[in-house]
Amino acid sequence: MNTFGNIFRLTTFGESHGFGVGGVIDGMPAGVAVDMEFIQKQLDRRRPGQSRLTTSRREDDRVEVLSGVMDGCTTGQPVGFLVRNNNQHSQDYDNLRDLFRPSHADLTYYMKYGIRDHRGGGRSSARETVSRVVGGAFAMLVLRQKGISIRAYTQQVGDVVLAGTYADYDLEQTDSNDVRCPDAETARRMSDLIMEVKGEGDTIGGVIACVIQGCPVGLGEPCFRKLHAQLGSAMLSINAAKGFEYGQGFGNMNLRGSQQNDILIPCDGEISRNRMPEFKTNNSGGIQGGISNGQDIYFRVAFKPVATLLMEQDTVDIHGNAVKLRARGRHDACVLPRAVPIVEAMAAMVILDNMKLAGMI
Amino acid sequence: MNTFGNIFRLTTFGESHGFGVGGVIDGMPAGVAVDMEFIQKQLDRRRPGQSRLTTSRREDDRVEVLSGVMDGCTTGQPVGFLVRNNNQHSQDYDNLRDLFRPSHADLTYYMKYGIRDHRGGGRSSARETVSRVVGGAFAMLVLRQKGISIRAYTQQVGDVVLAGTYADYDLEQTDSNDVRCPDAETARRMSDLIMEVKGEGDTIGGVIACVIQGCPVGLGEPCFRKLHAQLGSAMLSINAAKGFEYGQGFGNMNLRGSQQNDILIPCDGEISRNRMPEFKTNNSGGIQGGISNGQDIYFRVAFKPVATLLMEQDTVDIHGNAVKLRARGRHDACVLPRAVPIVEAMAAMVILDNMKLAGMI
Amino acid sequence: MNTFGNIFRLTTFGESHGFGVGGVIDGMPAGVAVDMEFIQKQLDRRRPGQSRLTTSRREDDRVEVLSGVMDGCTTGQPVGFLVRNNNQHSQDYDNLRDLFRPSHADLTYYMKYGIRDHRGGGRSSARETVSRVVGGAFAMLVLRQKGISIRAYTQQVGDVVLAGTYADYDLEQTDSNDVRCPDAETARRMSDLIMEVKGEGDTIGGVIACVIQGCPVGLGEPCFRKLHAQLGSAMLSINAAKGFEYGQGFGNMNLRGSQQNDILIPCDGEISRNRMPEFKTNNSGGIQGGISNGQDIYFRVAFKPVATLLMEQDTVDIHGNAVKLRARGRHDACVLPRAVPIVEAMAAMVILDNMKLAGMI
Amino acid sequence: MNTFGNIFRLTTFGESHGFGVGGVIDGMPAGVAVDMEFIQKQLDRRRPGQSRLTTSRREDDRVEVLSGVMDGCTTGQPVGFLVRNNNQHSQDYDNLRDLFRPSHADLTYYMKYGIRDHRGGGRSSARETVSRVVGGAFAMLVLRQKGISIRAYTQQVGDVVLAGTYADYDLEQTDSNDVRCPDAETARRMSDLIMEVKGEGDTIGGVIACVIQGCPVGLGEPCFRKLHAQLGSAMLSINAAKGFEYGQGFGNMNLRGSQQNDILIPCDGEISRNRMPEFKTNNSGGIQGGISNGQDIYFRVAFKPVATLLMEQDTVDIHGNAVKLRARGRHDACVLPRAVPIVEAMAAMVILDNMKLAGMI
Repeated sequence: MNTFGNIFRLTTFGESHGFGVGGVIDGMPAGVAVDMEFIQKQLDRRRPGQSRLTTSRREDDRVEVLSGVMDGCTTGQPVGFLVRNNNQHSQDYDNLRDLFRPSHADLTYYMKYGIRDHRGGGRSSARETVSRVVGGAFAMLVLRQKGISIRAYTQQVGDVVLAGTYADYDLEQTDSNDVRCPDAETARRMSDLIMEVKGEGDTIGGVIACVIQGCPVGLGEPCFRKLHAQLGSAMLSINAAKGFEYGQGFGNMNLRGSQQNDILIPCDGEISRNRMPEFKTNNSGGIQGGISNGQDIYFRVAFKPVATLLMEQDTVDIHGNAVKLRARGRHDACVLPRAVPIVEAMAAMVILDNMKLAGMI
Repeated sequence: MNTFGNIFRLTTFGESHGFGVGGVIDGMPAGVAVDMEFIQKQLDRRRPGQSRLTTSRREDDRVEVLSGVMDGCTTGQPVGFLVRNNNQHSQDYDNLRDLFRPSHADLTYYMKYGIRDHRGGGRSSARETVSRVVGGAFAMLVLRQKGISIRAYTQQVGDVVLAGTYADYDLEQTDSNDVRCPDAETARRMSDLIMEVKGEGDTIGGVIACVIQGCPVGLGEPCFRKLHAQLGSAMLSINAAKGFEYGQGFGNMNLRGSQQNDILIPCDGEISRNRMPEFKTNNSGGIQGGISNGQDIYFRVAFKPVATLLMEQDTVDIHGNAVKLRARGRHDACVLPRAVPIVEAMAAMVILDNMKLAGMI
Repeated sequence: MNTFGNIFRLTTFGESHGFGVGGVIDGMPAGVAVDMEFIQKQLDRRRPGQSRLTTSRREDDRVEVLSGVMDGCTTGQPVGFLVRNNNQHSQDYDNLRDLFRPSHADLTYYMKYGIRDHRGGGRSSARETVSRVVGGAFAMLVLRQKGISIRAYTQQVGDVVLAGTYADYDLEQTDSNDVRCPDAETARRMSDLIMEVKGEGDTIGGVIACVIQGCPVGLGEPCFRKLHAQLGSAMLSINAAKGFEYGQGFGNMNLRGSQQNDILIPCDGEISRNRMPEFKTNNSGGIQGGISNGQDIYFRVAFKPVATLLMEQDTVDIHGNAVKLRARGRHDACVLPRAVPIVEAMAAMVILDNMKLAGMI
Repeated sequence: MNTFGNIFRLTTFGESHGFGVGGVIDGMPAGVAVDMEFIQKQLDRRRPGQSRLTTSRREDDRVEVLSGVMDGCTTGQPVGFLVRNNNQHSQDYDNLRDLFRPSHADLTYYMKYGIRDHRGGGRSSARETVSRVVGGAFAMLVLRQKGISIRAYTQQVGDVVLAGTYADYDLEQTDSNDVRCPDAETARRMSDLIMEVKGEGDTIGGVIACVIQGCPVGLGEPCFRKLHAQLGSAMLSINAAKGFEYGQGFGNMNLRGSQQNDILIPCDGEISRNRMPEFKTNNSGGIQGGISNGQDIYFRVAFKPVATLLMEQDTVDIHGNAVKLRARGRHDACVLPRAVPIVEAMAAMVILDNMKLAGMI
């Protein structure tokens, strides 16, 4: 199923090397001004070829909105949109027609569908995430009005880690460098590592951190649709994602409950939806019992190194024979910088969907 | 929404201190022999009071199957079931009526629903997971027939970590000790740590690892419903879960793509659903492009320390006043041992659901 | 799938001759007083054995609420409930073990599931509708507060038809007779017909009409989930239902558009959600473009004669042999009177679900 | 929600007077040859301007397939498609900007969304059904391979009724006349009536009948998703539909159960999925207990007269004032002929979805 969400929904289609990619955004509230510049800017942040760190592939990635907007505002009807492919070099992939690239979806798709779409990975290509960025940008148009901000950044590349938490940095600086790390010095080291890896024809993974601020209390459902379960599912559906954690996550396992519990601070008067108490800490990551508590929601997403290498690899062809593979074309040595807006987009859709489910919009 | 799954579905109800918990299993294939002993055994593994490590609360947790079974076999109709609460000490919770316990769902539920169900956490209690274990056990009845096994174990408690991977241990030994760690020596150290923490009235978290073996190729969907995104959502919906990773996950970030890619081994003849090639490694964790590749699927789930402490804590009451909280009743110092069957149950439901979606059952 | 609804949902389980029937109501708003007397009264209206017109089977049909209610009010958590079977005469069905009853679900269930649950139809029995009446009664608890009423009545039995529309009768009189027709004289003729048919060991069908009053403007979705499509699906899912129509439906096909269009009446001031104009007529049946317009929503549901006859019928057994079937046990000659509360219940769940989807509750 | 279906799904977007309409078909099996000529032919049957009976509006309605197809075959990935609007006369609608047309969706959309999309009805226009026809045509590509045929025809226009049942006519003749009635003489009378009504600037409704042949046993679910409930919902979601009935429906209410029951015919050997017994009659309409029994599935759909009249009507404007409305532009006097392929398309999608749910495809 290529649909994401419950009552705010994105349905996507499209492949890496066909006509293009696109989708349908369903459940967009009516009367929202459609800031096309903002939407395009989000796409530009995901676009290949934006810096020496990313692939030299240039894709313009212009979004065309086909429906659901009249006189510059949403109508409440489904928003169809298209982003055409261009600058395709399908011939770059001709040598892959009968191969299965290691750690790609080539083999599993072939097994599931009996089809080998060798043209840049077809549907399994990260080009599909273009549609997610568009869907997320529409969601953000609504969230912005409600004072909710979502900011992701590259927190780790290989073994270069940004120390501390999001609170230690000015996240407005994230886009001030190509690697999208809010600390210039760490960004430089990450950048150096990526260039080094790229020079070897190899690839490297890392971690993106994200924080959602201004989120109202009460999002998420108690049982199977805990807010963090929805966020986790959303993030893990991004290409190359291998892990998700929020709050303390996998870290600090030596800390006791008495050290991790977030203590409430007494406040002046009856507690109600309009008078939330404050907390001394936020180890919970803004979610308790699956429901947002008004604190910052923060989480981390692990990404593996891109599977496409610009060096020779052993693999097998469709006949089971050993073959040597050497990718042609233009590929990222590290997806992290371009995945930052994708993480934000997925988070935005989860939050808006849950605001709608909670009857807040 | 209290329903899990797409076409194999579990819907649950019930609270910690009401009549009991239960649910409806929908989409169970017809004609499956219902091994009640097996189902009860899974429940017993989750049950409180099974060892000195867990709460001294004794709950019998007998499952009553109300429908969907005739002459010992499933009929293809929904399986309603009940597990009655007993041995309730609601008075243990009377002192909580107007309090919000730190890092519990008390405050967020109150904000979302305007209700303070102080009796043992009400719906937010991990008692709800009884129903998940029953649902998972029914799923396992089908998976067993297909040669699919699912085995979870406690891999970390606090800073005591079981080294290596699942392949280094005999997972048949997992239940040979109270902590459900397949290595006796590590289990002993985990057990000692839990007893120490318990003695302090404190709690401790950890990590459960799980491996799915014998899983067919082709489970999962390309885009939003990647198999690991579904597994991640399932695991993160378990009480106290803070993180999920599969394959290499958050670890080994210094490894390059050339070190992480799983190289295919040439085989004898055309590759097809019946002739899958083998791999030199399994860094992918059995899932490529969101679809199972026939290799072992392995993942890890992080759990925080239980929020209920048997020591005094500061908190606030409904009027915003500072109060001292000291839990009464019987509580776990570490949920890991009892969460092992829950992790297995959730995994089983995900796998069966996806086999049905893929038309394999 | 045994779940009905989008975000107000009912999941049901249970068979005619097992432990009982029950379900889970999910999405019930918190803080609603649970009027158990009202809920039980709705069940009593559906109950067999309430008059000489219906089966002489006596079922007490006491509903037990298992969860989701505290101190007499809903908590916003799922409401599990049970209605035990009693007074079962399974031996009445022993002669059916190897037979397929004509125009029952016996053969199709056998083909789909490979199971022959001969005990009173098993899951296909109309006993399953007990759970719908409970679900509907909970929905009505909310709708009553909003001033929305739902009233169904028997409008036709065989060729005895209640002339005119719902507006011509006092629907408070519906339950003043056994057949649930608001006109005493027509009710008498319907009743006579049913008794006559019953005397012959035969059965008869008819039509139930229903009107929803006080429904807010704006329920329903433009495209596939038009309000009447949802109502139609709900009604057609009731056992023995063969047709659904709303507004002018199949009737008056000789009328032109100029005769059917509902003309708006000018009003004093800007039109807005708070100032709906009135209409000269309501041929639309309260729904335009799939969305409620605030007028009365009225529709009709056709029911076929019950398939179980108390006379001898030809049929075949599992071996393909010709056999004679004569039903034993106690059966209705006409389901209409007992189906009235089921129609109301399904309508109530559709309306509440759509109010939630529209963010009105 | 603008998505139809469970695991074979169509999501649509687009308005009458914007860029165009389109959609995403999800769950299309891989490896199906895409017969573009067939798909286009279905669209041509729905297209305006095909005969003097329909609007003189000419729309080319060329479908562009954007994804999910490679080398002429489906890949199992979502099929995005577009049908551009052309020949738009938006100025035809300028006089409607502040009006609410009687018995249109104008007022209800305005109330629900706060938006008045006056351009030809916007999303509520039947132009949206273009996407349904495309989705249905893709479904038919699969059903054809399985020997399943779906044939609808105009059975009634105003008071001109085609006597008898589908079995009395050669449905291959349906498209031999403009009105799509398989009997030439009745077609002529229907056609005359439509032309007469059109001459008056008025409109007329009618009934479309449909028969599904070759459908396997076992489609549909027992409870809420009975096959006919799904078909009913699908049909009632078509613009202007007012009623749905299958089998005996609303008719022949004077017949007793003994006259309506479909008697099974003894057969030679054990009954199994491969050896279905035959029936003496098919009053059930091919569905028993909500599940297909292998007999022909037949149903009828009632359509009201088109609301747009080419004569003067009274209505109100946005300020509540009385105004006179006279539609400009080109409009159908009777939608039945063009609705025939829409009914077929919706039926095809329901059948394929249920075959997938039943694991048959």
